Amino acid sequence: MHRILLRTVVFDYPPDVHDPARRFWQVALDAGIRRGTEHPEYHVLEHPAAVGSVLVQNVKVGPGRVHLDVETDDTEAEVARLVAAGAVVVARIDDWIVLCDPGGLPFCVVPADLDAGFAASAHTVGS
Amino acid sequence: MHRILLRTVVFDYPPDVHDPARRFWQVALDAGIRRGTEHPEYHVLEHPAAVGSVLVQNVKVGPGRVHLDVETDDTEAEVARLVAAGAVVVARIDDWIVLCDPGGLPFCVVPADLDAGFAASAHTVGS
Repeated sequence: MHRILLRTVVFDYPPDVHDPARRFWQVALDAGIRRGTEHPEYHVLEHPAAVGSVLVQNVKVGPGRVHLDVETDDTEAEVARLVAAGAVVVARIDDWIVLCDPGGLPFCVVPADLDAGFAASAHTVGS
Repeated sequence: MHRILLRTVVFDYPPDVHDPARRFWQVALDAGIRRGTEHPEYHVLEHPAAVGSVLVQNVKVGPGRVHLDVETDDTEAEVARLVAAGAVVVARIDDWIVLCDPGGLPFCVVPADLDAGFAASAHTVGS
């Protein structure tokens, strides 16, 4: 058994629109902004008007989209559970796993920040 | 001045993939499910493993996508603020306003559920 929680949304934009779109969401969500150091293609919106985390990613190629991250304390068990439910693994990037749902939408399984918010809201799943 | 909060994600699927995609996310997020009565094209995931609300919408035409809802206690003031920041209004559906961000992604401004969660996390914006 392991725990899961959906609490991160990621805006993905191709380079030609990334900068104005990132600035827009910073204003829209009344947030600060911090660029990733290990992954400079990401910006984190700081203290946004949102219940979870909000990231903006500069993707090399389009299309733009919103994708979601499922956080978990056991990525391999969670990927196995989601594949059994109908998802397909499409890529592995560092310790993130990119899957595609049965409707054709990509999403990620990522290691959880094991903070109090995760403990308070995560569900225990699996066997 | 008014308040805003991003706390709803909506999975939009065209009819050919909607049902399996909806079932997948119900399992993936360990949730119950309830179909909308006034808007039967929506299903609400009940008690999902998520920090906000999660909806699944059967859209008449594709593409599938994830879109986000910005809740507010003053939709017209919020739409005006977001248009000034670079968004464009593309549709009005009942009391929801559909906008497009400078990166080309649609999102909605919707009346907030003025519950304790909104009061606790919303930001005050505008003048």
